[in-house]
Amino acid sequence: MMRTRPLKVALLGCGVVGSEVARIMTTHADDLAQRIGAPVELAGVAVRRPAKVREGIPAELVTTDATALVKRGDIDVVVEVIGGIEPARSLITAAFEHGASVVSANKALLAQDGAALHAVAEEHGRDLYYEAAVAGAIPLIRPLRESLAGDKVNRVLGIVNGTTNFILDKMDSTGAGYQEALDEATALGYAEADPTADVEGFDAAAKAAILAGIAFHTRVRLDDVYREGMAEVTAADFRSAKEMGCTIKLLAICERAADGGSVTARVHPAMIPLSHPLASVRGAYNAVFVESDASGQLMFYGPGAGGSPTASAVLGDLVAVCRNRLNGATGPGESAYAALPVSPMGEVVTRYHISLDVADKPGVLAQVATVFAEHGVSIDTVRQQGKDGEASLVVVTHRASDASLSGTVEALRKLDTVRGVASIMRVEGE
Amino acid sequence: MMRTRPLKVALLGCGVVGSEVARIMTTHADDLAQRIGAPVELAGVAVRRPAKVREGIPAELVTTDATALVKRGDIDVVVEVIGGIEPARSLITAAFEHGASVVSANKALLAQDGAALHAVAEEHGRDLYYEAAVAGAIPLIRPLRESLAGDKVNRVLGIVNGTTNFILDKMDSTGAGYQEALDEATALGYAEADPTADVEGFDAAAKAAILAGIAFHTRVRLDDVYREGMAEVTAADFRSAKEMGCTIKLLAICERAADGGSVTARVHPAMIPLSHPLASVRGAYNAVFVESDASGQLMFYGPGAGGSPTASAVLGDLVAVCRNRLNGATGPGESAYAALPVSPMGEVVTRYHISLDVADKPGVLAQVATVFAEHGVSIDTVRQQGKDGEASLVVVTHRASDASLSGTVEALRKLDTVRGVASIMRVEGE
Repeated sequence: MMRTRPLKVALLGCGVVGSEVARIMTTHADDLAQRIGAPVELAGVAVRRPAKVREGIPAELVTTDATALVKRGDIDVVVEVIGGIEPARSLITAAFEHGASVVSANKALLAQDGAALHAVAEEHGRDLYYEAAVAGAIPLIRPLRESLAGDKVNRVLGIVNGTTNFILDKMDSTGAGYQEALDEATALGYAEADPTADVEGFDAAAKAAILAGIAFHTRVRLDDVYREGMAEVTAADFRSAKEMGCTIKLLAICERAADGGSVTARVHPAMIPLSHPLASVRGAYNAVFVESDASGQLMFYGPGAGGSPTASAVLGDLVAVCRNRLNGATGPGESAYAALPVSPMGEVVTRYHISLDVADKPGVLAQVATVFAEHGVSIDTVRQQGKDGEASLVVVTHRASDASLSGTVEALRKLDTVRGVASIMRVEGE
Repeated sequence: MMRTRPLKVALLGCGVVGSEVARIMTTHADDLAQRIGAPVELAGVAVRRPAKVREGIPAELVTTDATALVKRGDIDVVVEVIGGIEPARSLITAAFEHGASVVSANKALLAQDGAALHAVAEEHGRDLYYEAAVAGAIPLIRPLRESLAGDKVNRVLGIVNGTTNFILDKMDSTGAGYQEALDEATALGYAEADPTADVEGFDAAAKAAILAGIAFHTRVRLDDVYREGMAEVTAADFRSAKEMGCTIKLLAICERAADGGSVTARVHPAMIPLSHPLASVRGAYNAVFVESDASGQLMFYGPGAGGSPTASAVLGDLVAVCRNRLNGATGPGESAYAALPVSPMGEVVTRYHISLDVADKPGVLAQVATVFAEHGVSIDTVRQQGKDGEASLVVVTHRASDASLSGTVEALRKLDTVRGVASIMRVEGE
């Protein structure tokens, strides 16, 4: 059964993930050959700094000319773990044009140009797989694309960024402020020197775009994803959350509208009840809830980043793509036939926790309640606390559209008796 | 792109799962066609009671002659949701011989005869898929077989039977005894009139055999799985578990030995720490932990049974098998190349919680401790409680082989001062 001529793999990038991919390809060569039906051979490794010693990688395989490598013509699979838009996009395109299939871990590129790259892959009859782009080792793309292919997914709700979960978990468990928790994450290597992509939600938004696209068979681009970072979450927010029996997580939420005619995708901090399984996802772990018509609620949990877990996902894809190649077939490509409109954030319907600083005098609550009512936002609970002539008012609403809530807040700010809006946070997972 | 000639599906069995498969095939026909690349048509439904009215299924499709249906020659995919060994085995074999691929939810059959069925499928170039056989809607077979194909799985640890989890969860949360909790499960429809297959662990053992086979690329048959039911778990065991910060779950555990040279598979009740994610799996839900070299710890969670969830898994497989058919290819078949020996239970290494009724007099603890030491079982903690001239001794061991523990218990029973061994339970998930 075993073919003896090896399949040739070109590796683009040899950092934390790439070096682990190369290592496992060597140490587990026999297992990979058995599982694929043919041996796989590392045919070239494109790097930026060729002088760096890379244990286990023969020097003659190393090149700085990634373009020449993907255009060699004898490469069966290109593994792209460079990240970023360029040169990754051009290299992947060239790989397809020269007959290779591609395994990528590049969430930013796939969220921005996934449709175009899928089109090139299809034109050349090649595979584009990217399990590693979302939530590291956790199988998500394949379950959504294949296991749930006979079901109707209505919601994907997840923690897809380990850095921000580490920070929020730290704030929750120690009462630390944002900056203090971020500093610890940086010191421990969980946050990068420039943490913008993580804490501002760009990383999670790219993953949300990819997940929404696959879940709803609809093209969802990064620009379609509403995004709010978590830098403004305070220790006071965590105290408020605890009073409600909640914690705070940075969530990626992809939803089909109740009428089924449109979808939304968003990333923002939100309160979720402690009883929700996502509430107990600790440290840098990731977890994703998927709700479907027939299957009900599924959850997938695991390490969302790191060299080894990401390499595991890359290698799973590599095995699948190599098998397809031996079969002369391709796996499922882009599925965007549903082409549902992506609604703006204003149409999202959820609950809200609003904390107001108000004057401590009679009639304020009535004024505030009137503003909510005028905007069609129904109040679930109100809690009023006096302090030094001022008072704080914490309002939790029933479900309302984001647009209605925004209108409410704008009107509240104009009230003389409202000194300030201390925080607004969505409440999810109920 | 869309082929217009439909793929023909024969459905064997139209009970809770089968009727839901038929319903979704009808209501989601357009989506399925888009995802497959061709329409799928329900070409026949084999049932035992043809007179029963089945909403949404045209009477002319219904037949009692399942054999004739699978032998028609124009069937592309046979969906088998009858369960049991025969006639399912003969029907699936005939389906392959007459050109069909097969999607099955039949754990008992696959655990017993999976290798033979895979061989017939391969001989005829057809697919045998069975995601629905293990843990209902939870994607497990596909992630193990494909997503982790480039990784080395070391342990699969899971709750794979909803009935027993419902009973144990009830005992844990209410302090009820086994019979009381079972009666409630029966009244609510979670347990069958004859609950033997569930409570004696046969159902979970079949799933353990299937999971171990796929995880370790080794044939593991039902007979290879050590099995202990949960009918002897008592309210007192739950009190002991709580004192240790644990709860009790019926676990399916598939492990690679530390030296990598053999594997084990077993099903039994066990204590697990409350901090372990499996401890908080409530009611009839299922969850499976998978530990691999590169990916670390993954968890998959969801409804483990029921018509709709199981149908979701069947339909995911149906889409995959239909795509393969259109591609003229087959998906991954049996992978048993590693052919590792399956070790007997005696070689399993774990921790134990042993509760002894002993005479309340000096020297008893020394005697008991000596017996443990003589059998090479190291004690972690001992707790002694006196009551009315008798005493109970609760011993928790360090890791030891099951054979050593059995030898220890046998010797303990011979001590005059040991009045009885009240319970022995393994401690997992640490």
